[in-house]
Amino acid sequence: MNIPESNRPRIVIVGGGFGGLHLAKSLRNERFQVVMLDQNNYHTFQPLLYQVATAGLEPDSIAYPIRKIFKNQEHFFFRMAEVLEVFPEKKYVHTNIGTITYDYLVLATGTTTNFFGMDDIAKHAMTMKSISEALDLRSFILQHFEQALLTSSKEEQEALMSFAIVGGGPTGVELAGALAELKKHILPADYPDLDIRRMNIHLIEMADELLPPMADESSEKAFTYLEELGVTIWIKQAVKSYDGHKVSFQSGKELKAKTMIWAAGVKGNYLKGIAADAEEKGRYKVNRFSQIEEHEGIYAIGDIALMRTDDFPDGLPMLAPVANQQGTFLGKNILRIEKKEEPKPFEYKDLGVMATVGRNKAVVEIGKVKFQGLFAWFVWMFVHLVSLVGFRNKVVTFFNWSYNYLNFDRGVRLIIRKFERHKL
Amino acid sequence: MNIPESNRPRIVIVGGGFGGLHLAKSLRNERFQVVMLDQNNYHTFQPLLYQVATAGLEPDSIAYPIRKIFKNQEHFFFRMAEVLEVFPEKKYVHTNIGTITYDYLVLATGTTTNFFGMDDIAKHAMTMKSISEALDLRSFILQHFEQALLTSSKEEQEALMSFAIVGGGPTGVELAGALAELKKHILPADYPDLDIRRMNIHLIEMADELLPPMADESSEKAFTYLEELGVTIWIKQAVKSYDGHKVSFQSGKELKAKTMIWAAGVKGNYLKGIAADAEEKGRYKVNRFSQIEEHEGIYAIGDIALMRTDDFPDGLPMLAPVANQQGTFLGKNILRIEKKEEPKPFEYKDLGVMATVGRNKAVVEIGKVKFQGLFAWFVWMFVHLVSLVGFRNKVVTFFNWSYNYLNFDRGVRLIIRKFERHKL
Repeated sequence: MNIPESNRPRIVIVGGGFGGLHLAKSLRNERFQVVMLDQNNYHTFQPLLYQVATAGLEPDSIAYPIRKIFKNQEHFFFRMAEVLEVFPEKKYVHTNIGTITYDYLVLATGTTTNFFGMDDIAKHAMTMKSISEALDLRSFILQHFEQALLTSSKEEQEALMSFAIVGGGPTGVELAGALAELKKHILPADYPDLDIRRMNIHLIEMADELLPPMADESSEKAFTYLEELGVTIWIKQAVKSYDGHKVSFQSGKELKAKTMIWAAGVKGNYLKGIAADAEEKGRYKVNRFSQIEEHEGIYAIGDIALMRTDDFPDGLPMLAPVANQQGTFLGKNILRIEKKEEPKPFEYKDLGVMATVGRNKAVVEIGKVKFQGLFAWFVWMFVHLVSLVGFRNKVVTFFNWSYNYLNFDRGVRLIIRKFERHKL
Repeated sequence: MNIPESNRPRIVIVGGGFGGLHLAKSLRNERFQVVMLDQNNYHTFQPLLYQVATAGLEPDSIAYPIRKIFKNQEHFFFRMAEVLEVFPEKKYVHTNIGTITYDYLVLATGTTTNFFGMDDIAKHAMTMKSISEALDLRSFILQHFEQALLTSSKEEQEALMSFAIVGGGPTGVELAGALAELKKHILPADYPDLDIRRMNIHLIEMADELLPPMADESSEKAFTYLEELGVTIWIKQAVKSYDGHKVSFQSGKELKAKTMIWAAGVKGNYLKGIAADAEEKGRYKVNRFSQIEEHEGIYAIGDIALMRTDDFPDGLPMLAPVANQQGTFLGKNILRIEKKEEPKPFEYKDLGVMATVGRNKAVVEIGKVKFQGLFAWFVWMFVHLVSLVGFRNKVVTFFNWSYNYLNFDRGVRLIIRKFERHKL
């Protein structure tokens, strides 16, 4: 359509994750001007961050330049920017590079780590919500093994080689499995002077099972797999504090580990200016049209959005397929609104859930079908491979996986930038 | 040989570059204990750093974990450490992780950027001697394009999109060519709102030709190639100062560029404790046995070593093949010494020199044979590909090169960590 740029309704999308990407794509060739804002110039494929942290994949193969994704899309504009405040009455957002007005504002800002106010954990624990954080974790792990060579104290060595992963969701389970495989196949050859048997991997979960949202069958199988790999699993255990050396539990138990990885909770990346009434359970409450009802013309999709459906009375889960579908659907609804048609309510097409534990070990649930083991592991790999953005990333990832599988190897155990603690 | 570790003569190698790697490999299965020290846990394939800086390759494909290279080599020990001082009389080195005694000490520490005392340039210019620096440069370049979008001043935009590369050696030539290809194939699609024709690439050389050590034929061809790609070449021009915005030449001329890349000089990574008498032209003077004659049992190989031969009266060039050959040769000589045989003088087998400018454009000299263009470019690629350490890195690099060639693309234009100046 030959509409001048200034006459096009402007849709501002905050965040270049799964939801934002799908929304922007669904608006291709339509009558809008689409502006995407993100603090990074790339999209991050978050489900594979744990493989970057454990030296299985290079960071560049799970990141994709946003400009490249949209290089042939007209009326699309990307700006690397941080949104500082929304002014819903005046319909503009204030960012670190200036202000921008909108007709539609879509918040696809995702979530960040939630320490639930425990400052000592925020200070001493590692997190894994971004590529930088995953790289820091990779360096941190490897640095500890280098350090372990320098002490003759067995106790100190053991603490340096011990990992406390808090949170038994997919992130915690996948990370524990990947670390266990490092222990089994990689580290003994890399560090022949260390007794790698003294390396301990602890997975800590507050609920009474791993992968709480999955069926018991899957939870139990993940548990078994991890035990087989030598992971120590703590269930019904809540962490009370962590000082960088010792984990203290509410039960009074203690555990020495120089590395804690906190994967026990997230909270939405809230924006200043959005009504506090819209906040619920760390997300923005939206209706089935993805609208934040407190503000006209403001929408939320993906992890940040709390959308209730009949099947999910507590809100749709924080999964990539939900964000993808909401993004595409919202694009169509906005077009309906512009055409003075009625928007339709969103229906989630449940694609299932899955988690991988390690070599030939995964758990998959698709509808009522549940399966585990080698086939599940192939399904997991296939789904993640085809979901990766870009042909280059698919090929490099596929090659790395094949290579690692055949050689029992992880190619990228590099400390490119040493991690030095400077938080808080 | 079944010799206890404590009875083995200890060879301490400082540096895991080309020379150190080849030396350690040539000592495999011999009677020595080999200890390698490096500040990084990986080997860097320096000749391809410029491709990391210009988004053509991921950093992980030109880095290789040192522990992995030697994982099957017995009596080999790696420590990630910085050498602080050598005590030649007492035959030990002091490092940031403790002291270590040696029977043979081999310095393979390479070189670092030489600003020749120009503090303003040290403060404001970018360098490219390590993976971290190459990544900083990649971020810095991309950040400038993002910034250029935010100003309406054409002059400011032009300065943000202008690059002054100082030094017309292989690094400068290859970087200028790679930037020119970014300008031609990538940036116009990524930044449709910018007038990329205003991007300027300046290559500045003090001598009267590019690639001074190469034959005139090669120098002239490289010049022509770069001009065809739109690079502005300044010869016989010495830089006087740089304030982060403006390059001032000794001739009085000036040039506005927000990015200066300094590739105009290197100096050896000297170690405290080595006699000042051993220093010459920024390197350690060695005899044909790689010995630093001022100290018994101390050797130097690779870029840091100034070794004169009949063909190279000013010292062998700073090239990977020299380091490789010296490393392997020194290993054999040390074995001869241990066997009470006479060590042999090193002879350099000249493998030629080459530089690439861009797509289908390279210059190669092998002995008296000189050729340029498409075939030279294939030779350049082949030589670099087979020289890369590790099968994984070869495959990933080959795939990236093929992909980039066929698609006129550079896949990894990511700002993973923003560059913020904190030097000086």
